Amino acid sequence: MKRLGKQTISFDSPPTIVETASIVGPKEGQGPLAKYFDQCLEDEFWGEKTWEKAESKIIKETVNTVIHKSGIPMEQIDYCFAGDLLNQCISSSFGLRELNIPFFGVFGACSTFVESLCLGSVFIEGHGATNTLCATSSHFCSAEKQFRFPLELGNQRPPSAQWTVTGSGAAILSANGNGPYITTITPGKIIDMGIKDANNMGAAMAPSALDSLIVHFNDTGRKPSYYDVIVTGDLGYIGKEILTELSESKGFQIQNNYEDCGVLIFNKEEQDTHSGGSGCACIGTTFSGYFFKQLREKKINKILLIATGALMNSMSSQQGESIPGIAHAISIEN
Amino acid sequence: MKRLGKQTISFDSPPTIVETASIVGPKEGQGPLAKYFDQCLEDEFWGEKTWEKAESKIIKETVNTVIHKSGIPMEQIDYCFAGDLLNQCISSSFGLRELNIPFFGVFGACSTFVESLCLGSVFIEGHGATNTLCATSSHFCSAEKQFRFPLELGNQRPPSAQWTVTGSGAAILSANGNGPYITTITPGKIIDMGIKDANNMGAAMAPSALDSLIVHFNDTGRKPSYYDVIVTGDLGYIGKEILTELSESKGFQIQNNYEDCGVLIFNKEEQDTHSGGSGCACIGTTFSGYFFKQLREKKINKILLIATGALMNSMSSQQGESIPGIAHAISIEN
Repeated sequence: MKRLGKQTISFDSPPTIVETASIVGPKEGQGPLAKYFDQCLEDEFWGEKTWEKAESKIIKETVNTVIHKSGIPMEQIDYCFAGDLLNQCISSSFGLRELNIPFFGVFGACSTFVESLCLGSVFIEGHGATNTLCATSSHFCSAEKQFRFPLELGNQRPPSAQWTVTGSGAAILSANGNGPYITTITPGKIIDMGIKDANNMGAAMAPSALDSLIVHFNDTGRKPSYYDVIVTGDLGYIGKEILTELSESKGFQIQNNYEDCGVLIFNKEEQDTHSGGSGCACIGTTFSGYFFKQLREKKINKILLIATGALMNSMSSQQGESIPGIAHAISIEN
Repeated sequence: MKRLGKQTISFDSPPTIVETASIVGPKEGQGPLAKYFDQCLEDEFWGEKTWEKAESKIIKETVNTVIHKSGIPMEQIDYCFAGDLLNQCISSSFGLRELNIPFFGVFGACSTFVESLCLGSVFIEGHGATNTLCATSSHFCSAEKQFRFPLELGNQRPPSAQWTVTGSGAAILSANGNGPYITTITPGKIIDMGIKDANNMGAAMAPSALDSLIVHFNDTGRKPSYYDVIVTGDLGYIGKEILTELSESKGFQIQNNYEDCGVLIFNKEEQDTHSGGSGCACIGTTFSGYFFKQLREKKINKILLIATGALMNSMSSQQGESIPGIAHAISIEN
C-alpha cells in the first residue's frame, strides 16, 4: 500500500469484498430495500428478553450468515473488526463472543462499518491477514432508550430527528478474490462545528462528510464524476441537502450521483421516519444488502462510501457539549 | 509483516516506540510509580466542571505532551488510534477533537492501549503510515459513576474490587527510529468463562490473559524466560494469582518474571486500593511512565505486554450477563 496525499491510503493488491450479509428489523423490512436483505425480522425482540440481547443476536446471526455464504471456514478468518452504538459496544462483544476469532473492538458511532472495512483491508494488504471479518449493528429500541428517552414515554420526535435502523451488516474481506475491490481508504478527522442539537444529527455530521469528501478527491486527484455513485451513511434528508450545498460551494458537483443510506432505507411518507434512517446498521445493511449486490452484478462499478458518525453520548449533551462528527471514506471498484 | 501461527503477526521492519507520555491523578501521584509520570495532578477536576471534562483534558494534554517530547510535527503524524471507558468513548473524541489527525476510535475496555498499539504498528509496517499516535485514558470518578454507584453514596467496596486509575498514557510509533521496537502482536479472542461478579474483574479477565499468553508462546515458539518481564494490564492481586496458577498448570512458568500494572501502580497497604489498579490508564500510564523508561535505559530489553479488558457495561450485568474478557499481547524489544 502507499500513502496518497494527506490522509488516503491506496492499495496495490486491493482486498476483495468476498461476501456480505444483512439482517434487519420489521420496519426496515417494510421499506423500499426489503428484498435486498438476507432476513427481515417480524418483531424487535427475535425471541430475546431485552432489546440489547436482540441486537446481539442480530449481529451474531448476520456474522454466521456472511461466513456461511462466503464458503470460507471460520478458522481461516484471521481477525474480526466490529463495534456498535451501545455503551461499551456490548452488542458486538456479546454477539461475537463465541466466534473464536481474534477481535478488534471499534468505535466510530455510525461510521463504525466503514472504519472496520478500513482496518480490515489494511491488515490484508499488509499481509497481516488473509481474510478479515467486519461487522456492525444498531437497534432502534436500544438506541432510543440509551440516547434519548424511554420508548414507553411515547415522546414526540422533531422533524429533523432520524430513525435508528434495526439490523446488522457484515462483510468478509480477502486477499484472494476477483472484486469488488477496496481500492483506497480515506480515514476521517474529528470535525466539530459546534452543533448541539442531538435531534439534528445530519447537520452535526455533514461537515465531517464534506471534509473527508474533499480530502479524498484532493488526495486521489479524482472528481465526483469518477464514481457511479457517492454514498453517505446516515446524513438523512437534512444532512444530504447540507452536504450537497456545501460540496457545490467548494467546487465539487455531487448532485447527480449522490445517495444517502438514511434516505434510501425508509419510505419517508409512509413510514413516518422524518429525516431518514441512522445508526451503525444504516450504511451497514444498505451497503451489505443493496449496494454490494449492485456492484457484484456490475450495475455499478465504482462507489465512494462515506460513513458518518456523531461522537457524543447523552451525558455530553447534558453537560453542554457540542456534537463532533467523523466520516471515513473508502472507494470500492470492480 | 508475516503471520506466525494462529493469531500472531511478526514485523520485518518493526516500528519504534519513539516516545511516550503519561499524566495521572492525585492518588497515582502518591503511589510508588509517581516519579516516572510526566505530571501528577493535584485534584480530580483539573479546573474542569465535571469528571468527564477532566478526563478529556487529561488525554488531550497527555497527547500534546507526547507530541512535544517526540519532536515530530503534528502534521507528520498520519493516524491516531484512541479509546477509553466512557460511554461512546467521549473522553477520546472530545479530548482529541482539535488534533486534526485522522482518527480511529478503538474500544477494548482496559485493553484499549495495547489494541491501539497493535493497529498503529500494523499501519506503519504495512507502509500505510510513517508515524502513528496511540492513546487512552480512564478516570476513577467518571468510571465509578458510570459502572458502579454514585460516588456521593460512599458505597463500600469489596476486597476483590479494583481502583480505576485516573490518568492517560500515549505513545508515538514510527517507521524511523532505533527502538524500542514492537516486534510481534498477538491480538486476543473474546473469552467468556461465565464470571458474573462485576467487583471481581481480575477473575473475569485472567482467562483471556491466559489464552493470549499461551497463543503468543505457541505462535512464536518463545518461552516465558525469553522475556525480561511479562506484564499484564490490570488483573490486580487476585487476577495475577489466578493467571500465575493457570499458566503453571498449562506448563508456562511465569512466576519469576511476571508483573501486573494494577499491582505496581498503588501501594495496597497504604492506599486502600484492595485488589489493585484497573482501567485503560492502568497499563497506559504504567507502560508509558515506567516500563518505557526501563526499556529506553536498557534496564530491560524484552517485554511482553498483555493488556486485559472486560467487555461489559452496567446494564449487561443487570440483565444477568456474564463478563467476557479480552487480552491483546505485544512484544517490545531493544
